[in-house]
Amino acid sequence: MLTTQHILVFGAGKSATVLIDYLKQKTTAHQWKLTVADSDLQTVEDKLGTADGCKAVQLNILDAGKRASLIQDADVVISLMPPSLHLPIAEDCLAYGKHLLTASYADPAIKALASEVRNKDILFLCEMGLDPGIDHMSAMQLIHRIQAEGGDITSLYSHCGGLVAPESDNNPWHYKISWNPRNVVLAGKAGAIYRENGTEKKLSYADLFRQHTSVSIPSLGTLSYYANRDSLAYIDLYALPEVKNFLRTTLRHPDFCKGWAAIVALQLTDESLWYDTDGLPIQDFLKQHLAQNKLQECFDAYMNDPLLNEQFSFLGFFSEKPINKGKCSAADILQWRMEESWLLHPTDKDMIVMLHEITYLLDGKSRTVKSSLVVKGENHLRTAMAKTVGLPLAIAAVLIADGSLKERGLHIPVTPAIYEPVLTVLKQEGILFQEQQILNS
Amino acid sequence: MLTTQHILVFGAGKSATVLIDYLKQKTTAHQWKLTVADSDLQTVEDKLGTADGCKAVQLNILDAGKRASLIQDADVVISLMPPSLHLPIAEDCLAYGKHLLTASYADPAIKALASEVRNKDILFLCEMGLDPGIDHMSAMQLIHRIQAEGGDITSLYSHCGGLVAPESDNNPWHYKISWNPRNVVLAGKAGAIYRENGTEKKLSYADLFRQHTSVSIPSLGTLSYYANRDSLAYIDLYALPEVKNFLRTTLRHPDFCKGWAAIVALQLTDESLWYDTDGLPIQDFLKQHLAQNKLQECFDAYMNDPLLNEQFSFLGFFSEKPINKGKCSAADILQWRMEESWLLHPTDKDMIVMLHEITYLLDGKSRTVKSSLVVKGENHLRTAMAKTVGLPLAIAAVLIADGSLKERGLHIPVTPAIYEPVLTVLKQEGILFQEQQILNS
Repeated sequence: MLTTQHILVFGAGKSATVLIDYLKQKTTAHQWKLTVADSDLQTVEDKLGTADGCKAVQLNILDAGKRASLIQDADVVISLMPPSLHLPIAEDCLAYGKHLLTASYADPAIKALASEVRNKDILFLCEMGLDPGIDHMSAMQLIHRIQAEGGDITSLYSHCGGLVAPESDNNPWHYKISWNPRNVVLAGKAGAIYRENGTEKKLSYADLFRQHTSVSIPSLGTLSYYANRDSLAYIDLYALPEVKNFLRTTLRHPDFCKGWAAIVALQLTDESLWYDTDGLPIQDFLKQHLAQNKLQECFDAYMNDPLLNEQFSFLGFFSEKPINKGKCSAADILQWRMEESWLLHPTDKDMIVMLHEITYLLDGKSRTVKSSLVVKGENHLRTAMAKTVGLPLAIAAVLIADGSLKERGLHIPVTPAIYEPVLTVLKQEGILFQEQQILNS
Repeated sequence: MLTTQHILVFGAGKSATVLIDYLKQKTTAHQWKLTVADSDLQTVEDKLGTADGCKAVQLNILDAGKRASLIQDADVVISLMPPSLHLPIAEDCLAYGKHLLTASYADPAIKALASEVRNKDILFLCEMGLDPGIDHMSAMQLIHRIQAEGGDITSLYSHCGGLVAPESDNNPWHYKISWNPRNVVLAGKAGAIYRENGTEKKLSYADLFRQHTSVSIPSLGTLSYYANRDSLAYIDLYALPEVKNFLRTTLRHPDFCKGWAAIVALQLTDESLWYDTDGLPIQDFLKQHLAQNKLQECFDAYMNDPLLNEQFSFLGFFSEKPINKGKCSAADILQWRMEESWLLHPTDKDMIVMLHEITYLLDGKSRTVKSSLVVKGENHLRTAMAKTVGLPLAIAAVLIADGSLKERGLHIPVTPAIYEPVLTVLKQEGILFQEQQILNS
C-alpha cells in the first residue's frame, strides 16, 4: 500500500509560482503532504496559501541541520535553488535515500554521484524544466517516432527562448526578464560548441552573438538564435552519433542579439573589474569603464547605430543617476540596469518559444519536421517561464510519488518511460507542440 | 496548425461539476472555447462561472434546431444526458462530423451507427466514465501487462460501487445518493448474466440481491456485491475468450443488499402499477400496494427483521405524510422517498470503490492481483462520483481536441492508445489504484 507521500520544494522564487499551485492541487487530491522552504517566509506563504497538508518553512539552505531534517521527512525533493546550491541538497537526498528533481544541467558534481544514487535505489532526475527539460522530452519523442518509422536523422536544430509576448513588447531590446537575471547577464560566457556539416564547430563568447543566424517560427515570424553551451554532449544522450548537424540554441529578437553583441564586446558583462559606485553616476561609470579598457572608440562606433544608441539609452547608461551600490563589477551594474529597464510589469505577458527542426532520410527522400511550441504567460507571476519550468518538475514529482515513475539512478528525461507520461500531462495543461512536415527532395 | 478547439457539453447535472471545472481550466490554458448547455440556465451559470471563451446556454435538448446549431459550432461534444437522449445528439454529431463522448453503455442504437462514424472519420467514445469507464481502462491495463509478462488469465472479477464515505455514513442503508436516483431505483431490473467455472450463469432481478456474495477491499473492509448486467459481452471486448470466471459487479454495503432484496421482492421498484397519490399518506400507499399485489404476508415476514424494519421506517414508509404527487408508480414513490432520506448533505462525502481481482497462470503457478481504488468526495457537489465519472470524459475530450487521441470510429476505452494517456492524467488528479500480489499455489 502506498503510504502518504511528502513532496518537499526548496525555493519559492520566480520559477516556483505555477509549480507550487500545481503541487498544492495534486497533493490535496492525493491527501499527501507538501512543504515549501525558502529564505523568505513571506514569499512562500503568499505563494502556498493555506491548505491541509501544506506547510511553508523559512530556511537558510546552508543551515545543514534544518535542511537535513526537512529532507529526512520527505519522499520526493525538488530543488529550485541556483545550480551551485544543488549539491548539499543532493548529498542529503543520498544520505536519507530520497528522490531529487532539478531543472538544472546535470553538472560534474552531480554526475559524480551517479553510482551512489543507483546503489541507494533512488532517482535523481535533472534537466527537468523547460530548457533543459521540455526540449529533451519533445525532441526525444520526435526522434524515437521518426526512428520507429525507419527514418535516419541527419540534422537536429533545437531552439528555445524565453521572450516577451508581442502584446507586451514595448522596448528597443524586445526583452523583459522572466527568470534569474544573473543568468541573462552571464549567458554564453563559456562560448559554445556544436556539430555542423559533420565537423565540430566552436564559437567564442565574443562571436556567439554576432552570427546573424535566424529561423522562422510558425505563426510567429523570424527570430535570431545563438548557440547554447555544449551541444555535442547531447549527441550521445540523444543517441544520434551519425548526425551531420546538431545544434541547441537560444532564441532572441534579432535586435536583442545585435545589442547584446555590443554589450559583450564592451565588456559590460565582466565580473572581474570592480568599481566603487557610491555617488558614481551611471554615465560616469560607463566613461570610466570604457577608458580603463580602451573601448571608447569601439563604443563611439557602436553609437552611430541609432538602434544601439536607443538600446543603451533605454538601459540608462547615459543617465546622471548615481549607482550607490558600493563595490560592484560591470556585470553587477548591468544586471541592475536590466532589472530596472526590463522589468516584467504586473500585466505584462512573457512568452516561451521552442522549435525543433529535424531532418531525416526516409525511403530515399529527405524530409524535415518542424515542431514548435509557443506559450504565453498570464501575468508577471504566472509566467510562461514559470509554467514551462515548473510543470515538468511538478508532474514528474507526482509520477514518482504515486509510483508510476520507477526509473532509478541519475537521469535526464530522454527515455519514453519518463517523457511519455510527462508530455501527456503537459498537453492537458496547454503545453502543446504544433507540427509541420516538409518534403525536401 | 491546430485551430481553436471548441468543446460542447450537454448536461450540467450531478456528474458535471468536476468535469466543467476541469474543462474550464484546460480550455482556458489552451485558449479554446467551452460551451455548456442544460435546460436549467442557472445551474450551468453557477457551475461554469465566467471566463474568456466559456459560455452557458439554456437548451431543451429536443429543440432540434438549436441543438444542431450548437453541435455544428463545436469540435468535440460530451453528452451527460440520460442514455435515452444520446441518440439525437449522436445523429447530429454524425451529420456535422463532430466527435462524441458519453459515459453510458454503447447501446444497440449507438452501435448501429458504427460504420457511419468510421466513414465520417470521427470518434464516438462511449463508456468513458467510471463504471463503465475507469473499470475498463484499469482492467485492460492490468490484463495487457499480465499478458505481456506471459500470464494466462483464468478469472476476472471487476467490482465497483458508488457509496457513502464511512465518516458520512449515518443511516441503516449505509447509502446516500450521489448520482441519478432513477438509476438507483432501476438498477438490476434486467437481471444479470456472467461466466462462472466456465459456464454461463443467469440471475433474475429477484435473485440478484440475494446472493450474499462479498469481497474484502484492502484498507476498507468487507462489502457485498451483486452481478452487473451483461458481463459476457465484455469477455470478447476484453479479448479473454478462454477465461473461466468473468464477472462485473456493483458493490454495496451488506445491509443495503439485504434491504434492497426486500424492496425488490415487495415490487416497490415497479413502474407499471399506478397510484393516485394526492392526499394519500405514505403508509396508506404501502398498505394499498401490498394488498393489491398480495404481498402483505411477505411484508410482515420481512418486518420481523429489526434491520429491515428500521430501513423501511427510515425511508418513511410508516409515515402519515401525504404523497401529493398526482399519478405515480411505486417506483416514483420509492424514488421520492430515497431522494429525501438518502440525501447527500452539503458536508457529506461520498466514496467510490473499485476492485479488480485477476487470477492468472504464470510459470505453472496461479497468482492473483488485486487492484483497488478508493476515492472520497470533497462535499456534496465535488463528489467522488462527479470526479470519477467526469474526469475521464474531460481528459479524453482534451486529448481529442489537442490531436493526441487519433482513434476514429465507435470505441469503448479498452485499447492502450486510449487508456494509457487517460490513466496517466487521472493519476495526477489523485485517481490512483493500489496493487496487491498474491501467490495462490
